[in-house]
Parts: sequence; C-alpha cells; structure tokens
Amino acid sequence: MQQTGSVTPMSKEMQDCVQACLSCHATCEETMSSCMQMGGQAQMQIMRTLMDCSEMTRMCADMMMRRSPMSAEMCALCARACDMCAEACMSMPDDPHMMRCAEACRRCADMCRSMAAAMA
Amino acid sequence: MQQTGSVTPMSKEMQDCVQACLSCHATCEETMSSCMQMGGQAQMQIMRTLMDCSEMTRMCADMMMRRSPMSAEMCALCARACDMCAEACMSMPDDPHMMRCAEACRRCADMCRSMAAAMA
Amino acid sequence: MQQTGSVTPMSKEMQDCVQACLSCHATCEETMSSCMQMGGQAQMQIMRTLMDCSEMTRMCADMMMRRSPMSAEMCALCARACDMCAEACMSMPDDPHMMRCAEACRRCADMCRSMAAAMA
Amino acid sequence: MQQTGSVTPMSKEMQDCVQACLSCHATCEETMSSCMQMGGQAQMQIMRTLMDCSEMTRMCADMMMRRSPMSAEMCALCARACDMCAEACMSMPDDPHMMRCAEACRRCADMCRSMAAAMA
Repeated sequence: MQQTGSVTPMSKEMQDCVQACLSCHATCEETMSSCMQMGGQAQMQIMRTLMDCSEMTRMCADMMMRRSPMSAEMCALCARACDMCAEACMSMPDDPHMMRCAEACRRCADMCRSMAAAMA
Repeated sequence: MQQTGSVTPMSKEMQDCVQACLSCHATCEETMSSCMQMGGQAQMQIMRTLMDCSEMTRMCADMMMRRSPMSAEMCALCARACDMCAEACMSMPDDPHMMRCAEACRRCADMCRSMAAAMA
Repeated sequence: MQQTGSVTPMSKEMQDCVQACLSCHATCEETMSSCMQMGGQAQMQIMRTLMDCSEMTRMCADMMMRRSPMSAEMCALCARACDMCAEACMSMPDDPHMMRCAEACRRCADMCRSMAAAMA
Repeated sequence: MQQTGSVTPMSKEMQDCVQACLSCHATCEETMSSCMQMGGQAQMQIMRTLMDCSEMTRMCADMMMRRSPMSAEMCALCARACDMCAEACMSMPDDPHMMRCAEACRRCADMCRSMAAAMA
C-alpha cells in the first residue's frame, strides 16, 4: 500500500535551493522586462546574461524537483550563470531593479554551490 | 531619473496567478518523478498530461512576469492544460501525490481562467 | 514482439509543421542575438515578440513530437505568436535579419494554422 | 548602414553542433512518446535520462544560436547528459527506437565535446 506514488523526500537544503532558483528565475524575467522597456545599449548587454541565468535557474530547479541524477552538475553550472548575471547587473548600480536582481543571483549562486558540493 | 528600470507593476491578481502557475509547475515535476519511480501503465498515461501541464504553467508564469502581450491567450490555454491534468490525476484517487497534484491543477486552472477574462 | 517502442507515425504534414516550427525557433534565437548586439529602442520592442515566438514555436514542435493531445490548440496559439512576430519584424524593413525572421514566422504561422485545422 | 542587425557568423563546426543537438532533442522527444506508450518499469527509468537529455540539448542549441558566453560550459555538460542517455537506451537493445536514440545521443555527445574543447 505504501507504493502509492512515494518519491524520495527532498532535504531542507534542496528545498531552499529550489526556492532560491525559482526566485532568481522570477527576478531575471522581471528584469528582462525592465531592460526591454528601457532599451539602451548597456541594457542589451545585460539581456544576454539575464537570458542565460533565467533558463539555467529554471532548469536547475526542475532537475532537482524531478530528482535528476545530473542535479549536482547542473547546480555547479547554474552557480556560474548566476555569478555572471550578478556581475552584469552590478554594472548599473543606480538601477534598483538591477540591484535587486544582482542580490537574487548572488544568493542563488551561493546555494547552488553548496548544493553541488553536498551532492558530490 | 525615474527612467531607471521602471516596469509596469503587477496587479495583485496577476501576482497570485503567477504563484499558482509556479506552484502547479512544481507539483507536476514532483508528480512526474513519482510516476517514473512507480512505472505502471496508468502512470505513463498521466505522464503525458503532466508534461504538457508542467510546460504550460511554467511558460504562462514566464509570460506574465515579462509582461507578454500574449499573456491572456496563454492563460486561457494553460487553464485547459490544467483541467486535463487534474482529470488525469483524478483517475488514481488512492494516490495522495496524484490528489495533491489534481488540487494544484484545479486551483491554477481557476486563476488562469479569471486572469484571461480580466485581461481580455 | 511488435510491442518494441512503436509510436504512432507522424503524418507528412505534421513533420513539415515541426520543421517549420524548429526553423522559426532557430531564426528567432539568431534575431534576438542580432537585436542585443544592436541595442536600440526599436530592437527592444521587437525582443518581446521574438521571445514569445521563440518559446511558442519550440513548445509547439515538442508537443507534436511527443504526440500531445493539446497539439491542435497549441498550433493555433503558435500561429498567433508567429503573426505578431512577423509584424514586429516588418517594422524594420531595411534589416535583412529581420526580413528573414519575418519570412520564417509567416511560413510557420501558415503551417501551424493548417495543422490546427487538420487536427480539429 | 552596415549596422543593420549584423551578428557574428557561426562557424561550420558550431552549425553542425547545433544541428546535432536539435536532432538529438527531436529523437529524445519521440522516444519519450514511445516510452509512455509502452509504460514498463524499464521504460520509466529511461524516461529520466531522456528528459534531462532532451532539455540539455535544446538549451545547448539555443545558447549557441544566441551566442551565449556560457556555450562552452553548456556543451560540456550537454555531452555528459547525452552519454548517460545513450547508455540508458542501450539497456534495451531489441528496441529499434531506443537504438536510434542512442545513436543520436552518441553523435551529439561527440560533437558537443569537440565544440567545448574548441571554444575553451
């Protein structure tokens, strides 16, 4: 009877990491919208890293949620994408949207790195 | 000076709809993992609707977050995917995972339908 | 013995539609790259429709490839996204990249509309 | 005037790698459909690697197409996902669908590895 849809429970650390990824993903999507509304040259450079970071965080969260055997490697790569995006956002320190995004990226990078280490 | 990354703020209704989509997406990914662990014929039929629902809810949330002009139409289609997935999950009423997923799908379907109507 | 991984074969029309979607998706991704390199205000407006069209065409192709029961509805929505993207690209008639993208979008819109009608 | 949407042209190697990724992605989506139609325990184990491989190859192709600075790292991880998927498919040597998928995965893994090395 216990066979009804049991699935390995997620550790508290992994749950937090999934949340950090989803939150970073949401912030990236919002920041893209802001970039497209402004439309400057600087914004466009940042768009590239936002697109990468948005996709990586989403995919990383999805892989943890479905218990992919590649989760650890994905977390490591995701942390790198977040680092790059945080750095790009920091190039516009007067823009509160960019600062919020940089913060979400840094937090996600830290958690993904810890998660990758814990799973390795 | 107000040009620093301003972006149309999201209504409370849209925020709730985004949250319902992300929550439904997460539940679908977890339920897929459960299905794959069990591996029966019935589970496989449900996998199809889970995959559609998981992708639709994610894309619907992303489109609202980046203020896509197609958000209303996407919400309407997303509600349909959620309806189908809820119905599929209801075919296994003894599985608590499936019941949780059906509930998340129904809630998301309701909110997406309201959102589509409000935006139309 | 014939049970080894049989899958409903795809009609020639659906195969062509999948190809048109994938080709449109690729062109959108390339055009986004071009937009981000240029970074003007007009380009940014087009980015929104490119992002929608890129995601819709990809998802539409995926759904046909995995025989989703929602393929017809997705094709109909995808055709709309392609229409909007073609129109946006046409606003920059001097840019060969945009013209190529508009053409791919129009072709994909036509095929998706036919496909949606055929499946309905 | 030459500023009209120029974009760094893609090397022949990268074009081939993008094609191999898209082709592997398509094969994975078709194989998933076959797995879900059959619905055995073995098929379900393979579904996990198919889902990872399908998403990785798609994202890898997208990143190359939009000239992401993380393309090299993504190619390296994608090659790993393809390796794992090829190995999983090889566990059902009597299934022609699985054998076709394993072949597409191996080819994609090789090209992604070369690409990663060339870009590093």
